[in-house]
Amino acid sequence: MTNKKVILDVDTGIDDAMAIAYAVAAPGLDLIGVASSYGNLVVRGAAENSLKILELLGHTDIPVFMGESHSMATDHFDRMPVSAHIHGENGIGDVELPAPTRQPEAQSAVDFMIESAHKYGKELVIIPTGALTNVATAIEKDPSIVDLIGDVTLMGGALTVQGNVSPFAEANINQDAEAANTVFTSNLHDTMVGLDVTLRTLLTKKETQQWRDLGTNAGAKFADIVDYYIDVYAELYPHLDGCSLHDPLAVGVAEDPSFVRTLDIDMIVNTDKEKYGRTIGDNTRLDDPNPSVSAAIEVDTDRYLATFMKYLTTLFKNNK
Amino acid sequence: MTNKKVILDVDTGIDDAMAIAYAVAAPGLDLIGVASSYGNLVVRGAAENSLKILELLGHTDIPVFMGESHSMATDHFDRMPVSAHIHGENGIGDVELPAPTRQPEAQSAVDFMIESAHKYGKELVIIPTGALTNVATAIEKDPSIVDLIGDVTLMGGALTVQGNVSPFAEANINQDAEAANTVFTSNLHDTMVGLDVTLRTLLTKKETQQWRDLGTNAGAKFADIVDYYIDVYAELYPHLDGCSLHDPLAVGVAEDPSFVRTLDIDMIVNTDKEKYGRTIGDNTRLDDPNPSVSAAIEVDTDRYLATFMKYLTTLFKNNK
Repeated sequence: MTNKKVILDVDTGIDDAMAIAYAVAAPGLDLIGVASSYGNLVVRGAAENSLKILELLGHTDIPVFMGESHSMATDHFDRMPVSAHIHGENGIGDVELPAPTRQPEAQSAVDFMIESAHKYGKELVIIPTGALTNVATAIEKDPSIVDLIGDVTLMGGALTVQGNVSPFAEANINQDAEAANTVFTSNLHDTMVGLDVTLRTLLTKKETQQWRDLGTNAGAKFADIVDYYIDVYAELYPHLDGCSLHDPLAVGVAEDPSFVRTLDIDMIVNTDKEKYGRTIGDNTRLDDPNPSVSAAIEVDTDRYLATFMKYLTTLFKNNK
Repeated sequence: MTNKKVILDVDTGIDDAMAIAYAVAAPGLDLIGVASSYGNLVVRGAAENSLKILELLGHTDIPVFMGESHSMATDHFDRMPVSAHIHGENGIGDVELPAPTRQPEAQSAVDFMIESAHKYGKELVIIPTGALTNVATAIEKDPSIVDLIGDVTLMGGALTVQGNVSPFAEANINQDAEAANTVFTSNLHDTMVGLDVTLRTLLTKKETQQWRDLGTNAGAKFADIVDYYIDVYAELYPHLDGCSLHDPLAVGVAEDPSFVRTLDIDMIVNTDKEKYGRTIGDNTRLDDPNPSVSAAIEVDTDRYLATFMKYLTTLFKNNK
């Protein structure tokens, strides 16, 4: 298997932290950088959490980049109170981690994406697990990248199920529907890993206990961080048995697309107020023989979860 | 292949007329009755058109039943002007057919459905190609039928694409979203053949010319009726190359489910004003191992169209 060059684009966030761990651990992925986005918290907080998580995992070799601080249609981002509730005030379950010894790179996340697109071409997979603002901004700055990049494998959207911030919209897309529409309707190929599959992919305290039982610092800290998330899920979504592995599922699909069954379809993202953030098939392009989106609609939960646990447990075991 | 006992539930309608022809011609289907619904026109007009079409096809042995005349939440049905535009004033492209020699049966469509459910059980497939009012009314009158009937294979809904009467709603579901929700959330198994696949299944004048070239009355009349529909489609949907085979596709799937690829998922139909008629996955039941809906999301257009033409052309050839 040729290693894919991967840029994670995260608003770190508890499930983003798991996504970073999965990307570090996956043998088929070469994590070349972590871009930062706003959403679960402000972009500076996301970057700081990414630095902390990488340090916890012993991977201070992976650079972290600052991304855009707000959506394309606004000039400011205010963190929603519900985000602090779901991810904790500090974004990682209010678990204390040492202040990072590193700083984000001087180069911007957008410029790093553009440079990497030209350097790696089809080998490059960008995995946004927050708003699509950085990717859309990169496309606007250098439109040629849409024909270079291998894939944008994103956590976001809801095609066959209802949204989670409105009946129509999933939270990441809702942060910046204009950016999402730019990405979805560009020539870039997107693999959409949305609520359709992430709401079916759940982690429980039975699994986090295995991390705690390792007796390592990384295992204990990740168990504490994710337990916070599982507790919030039990309160907010009592019909689910565990917390959704939203962001790490996108990373899993980037390494092994066979975890999901997809529908290939051209899509748009609605940007009008009434249905802001709805991700839906484009009825005017149903005859396109090469649609630009593969939307995940089914997932092999058991196999994914086994891989997730194998990767993360091995990683935490080796990071005392 | 055991013949399936089939009740068509139609608001005849041009594509409903093609659905009747397909059901008559399909060797795997035993059409035991045609129920009448409102929608493309009022229920009495739909019944009259069904009688005319069956007579044109030489099938005066198939009984026609009167169904409900309006939706469950209203006490009246007004035909929308657009329906007269799409299907013609008389519902069958303003093509003149002789007044039928028969009348609808004295038994109601709802009672015929209930009787057939008890008589045929899992052999029975109901194919609604209009509002779901008759099926929902039958369920309310005799709830036991939900565990008897083999399948409800319906033309209606839109899961992965936008609606055709609103951004959310497909026309048949929009006629009576309350009835549709009753059917979708019952224990009945539904196969949803919606806009997701019917907008990809198109007929052109190249095909209708083959019917005209047969030199038979049935071929000529059907060519005239469907050409009316193709002309309206060219005007309303210039991005489509032909008219959608909405209703006959549902009949095709009832005989041969392998024409489509489905997503098995529990669904709801929204009945609030904001998103009335939206057909969408039920986020609270994503862990159900046996979902009650199989939603068609992809279609083997070429194979279906070849079967459609083989069936209808043979039928029209033998009906001078």
